[in-house]
Amino acid sequence: MLRIEHIGIAVKDLTSSEELFSKLLNVNPYKQETVASEGVTTSFFQQGESKIELLEATNPDSPIARFIASRGEGIHHIAFETADIIAEMQRLKDEGFIPLQEQPRRGADHKWVAFFHPKSTNGVLIELCQTIPE
Amino acid sequence: MLRIEHIGIAVKDLTSSEELFSKLLNVNPYKQETVASEGVTTSFFQQGESKIELLEATNPDSPIARFIASRGEGIHHIAFETADIIAEMQRLKDEGFIPLQEQPRRGADHKWVAFFHPKSTNGVLIELCQTIPE
Repeated sequence: MLRIEHIGIAVKDLTSSEELFSKLLNVNPYKQETVASEGVTTSFFQQGESKIELLEATNPDSPIARFIASRGEGIHHIAFETADIIAEMQRLKDEGFIPLQEQPRRGADHKWVAFFHPKSTNGVLIELCQTIPE
Repeated sequence: MLRIEHIGIAVKDLTSSEELFSKLLNVNPYKQETVASEGVTTSFFQQGESKIELLEATNPDSPIARFIASRGEGIHHIAFETADIIAEMQRLKDEGFIPLQEQPRRGADHKWVAFFHPKSTNGVLIELCQTIPE
């Protein structure tokens, strides 16, 4: 793990939450992006070397919609930047952590991403990511 | 806000969670500290310019014990480093965010800390902090 890449926060309404977090963080979001395969529209705020990512569901079956239905709005996951996501996935699997997919997928903000089950990490959904070169 | 200072994670058993997060993050905790006034024992892992803070309750009335009883283990709060915590508390109050105390308190890891109510921040408990000079 190189650093905390971002913290993902599940929200019901991206427009009002963008306004709220712009006030809270005293900075405007630098991009908004929909990832259809994940069922989310995201909005990113830079904070030092890390980001806050707001996540709004694009459909009722989105993992974000299900998360909000069961737990309400709030922090959804922590993402760590890696130098080699394949090697880091293997290292975590060897340590007994449970991946939610076998191979990284293409995520938001020019990243390969892979998630690990919160049951194996004290209730914390962990994302690994690696920046895709332009 | 200067950067994400740390992410606080509520855990039931600090010893086993320190082992788990040492494997996950591939680094050992750099300190353990009890803050009696907050009812917590904490353990810190450095990740880039930020930290992961594990929080175990020291008594059943601790906010961490109550959090785990109602929501289970998991991410408890996000803390942001500030250059001037008093000024930043005032800015957030003026924006309509709800402080959980009127003045900063002394927290773990040589910090002044102040929390804002998650009801005013999309379900996210926000901590402001400012390093106390040695």
